[in-house]
Amino acid sequence: MPVLFGDVGVLERLVQSGLPRLECRVISLEEWEDHGPVTEALVVDCGAVDGLSVNPGVISAGCGKAAFAYIEQAIRAAIAGRIDGVVTAPIHKEALRLAGVPYPGHTEIFAALTGARRSCMMLHSEALTVSMVTTHIGYADVPGKLSIKRVRDVIELTAEAVERLLGRRPRLGICGLNPHAGEHGLFGQQEEERFIVPALAQSRQEGIAIDGPLPPDACFTAGLRKQFDSIVTLYHDQGHIPFKMLAFETGVNITLGLPIIRTSVDHGTAFDIAWKGVADPQSLYAAIGAALRLARSGKEALAQA
Amino acid sequence: MPVLFGDVGVLERLVQSGLPRLECRVISLEEWEDHGPVTEALVVDCGAVDGLSVNPGVISAGCGKAAFAYIEQAIRAAIAGRIDGVVTAPIHKEALRLAGVPYPGHTEIFAALTGARRSCMMLHSEALTVSMVTTHIGYADVPGKLSIKRVRDVIELTAEAVERLLGRRPRLGICGLNPHAGEHGLFGQQEEERFIVPALAQSRQEGIAIDGPLPPDACFTAGLRKQFDSIVTLYHDQGHIPFKMLAFETGVNITLGLPIIRTSVDHGTAFDIAWKGVADPQSLYAAIGAALRLARSGKEALAQA
Repeated sequence: MPVLFGDVGVLERLVQSGLPRLECRVISLEEWEDHGPVTEALVVDCGAVDGLSVNPGVISAGCGKAAFAYIEQAIRAAIAGRIDGVVTAPIHKEALRLAGVPYPGHTEIFAALTGARRSCMMLHSEALTVSMVTTHIGYADVPGKLSIKRVRDVIELTAEAVERLLGRRPRLGICGLNPHAGEHGLFGQQEEERFIVPALAQSRQEGIAIDGPLPPDACFTAGLRKQFDSIVTLYHDQGHIPFKMLAFETGVNITLGLPIIRTSVDHGTAFDIAWKGVADPQSLYAAIGAALRLARSGKEALAQA
Repeated sequence: MPVLFGDVGVLERLVQSGLPRLECRVISLEEWEDHGPVTEALVVDCGAVDGLSVNPGVISAGCGKAAFAYIEQAIRAAIAGRIDGVVTAPIHKEALRLAGVPYPGHTEIFAALTGARRSCMMLHSEALTVSMVTTHIGYADVPGKLSIKRVRDVIELTAEAVERLLGRRPRLGICGLNPHAGEHGLFGQQEEERFIVPALAQSRQEGIAIDGPLPPDACFTAGLRKQFDSIVTLYHDQGHIPFKMLAFETGVNITLGLPIIRTSVDHGTAFDIAWKGVADPQSLYAAIGAALRLARSGKEALAQA
């Protein structure tokens, strides 16, 4: 049963602007604290922002603060086992920053608030699945964040998650950092030899089937990408460019390595069409579907244990 | 009329391995030096490598040296106006390096040997056209190569070339460097504000229609990329990943900014299928077609002047 963490005042404003009413029970945050098992769809009214103060499509500190409050409540409920996972809608990164939230995005908030020792972003769709060694950092900061341990962690997290999604051992690939994966040291500072090759060797010893380092511009072509259930990428756009080309409307963003399940839509806030009732919900449906699959496979694993 | 710069000994070996014979006149390099206007298809036998010494699919200094010799002869002929342009087949970058050739690839050889003041790589196809501010350098070296002048040069070269290919003023886009094009300084070291925004302003003053800096992961989606005749990218894989996904077999590589026309296939040497007669020639046909279009539009421009 779905539980929506938000503000009733905002939902009311949406109804006034012509969008359909969400027909389900609304309870306050206090009522939620004492609530038993969830047996019906619920809206938990977090009282984080005054509905009348919200200007659709305008970046504001108040909305950034409210978005963070909803996420916090959902994470707390998931950690306590009161919900099976969290599906998030997009947040505006500048609004978060204006609100003084010290994290650049969802992935980092979930990692920090759940105390995850290691985590990463994965984008999942029928056409392509990619995970990322680094995510929301500047282009120039990427090489300094590479290490054998971090690359190995992301390979392990990816192998685990894709196995849960597919129900079988996956075949993985990993990209190089430099053009042509460095072409044997011709380009770059041997990041392939220093970080990726040793991490690959260690991962294979753990029984993970993985190929690489792959030339980044070749491995996403139709012929090559189909050889892999998931491709590990080293930076945001190395994974996001091919993923959004293939699965712009149906992609799911999954945070790996958390003690809870978290999936998300794979698009931004689209403030230009805010509250107009024209947003495409496919990615949200896909995110809910992936969370359900992960929750069920987790329960099966528990039942078998 | 086509002129092939190569070695007859190698072509003979190809015939022996079962590939069809090239039915055209063969002349020596000395004969070529004194040859008049080209009125029939020719093979210029450069005598750069002994055909018997060539091992198909094996990287060797001798073949790297020969490849460089053929390119040098073709460039010399084009500069002298004896041919209208140069279409290149792939070369192996490691073989070049083993041969002591001090350039990482074709683009750099053509820029150096023609004395081009500024040049860049463009990949062209029906589905997508991208040019590159930086090309064959390591990932970490890219930010240090960005400058307002270099970005503006590549925008200008792209606008000129696409106008010649399409026969009308093009609409261009340019990518940001960082995730989400920096999201207003949230990621990266403001490379967008420091280099791209000023170069864009200068280019627009020259009458070039260009949008940006675009979020790199959004601008190659089907909805957005169709708004642009060409997208300027900042590094090799930012342009090559989307291009190869959309035009792996039909892409053409064009070097912009040269005093001569140069196009190329957009694939590698594929040593695994060397001399097997199974290579797909589509990209080579497309490269020849693009060279012809550029040569004709250049002659029209001369005729009108």
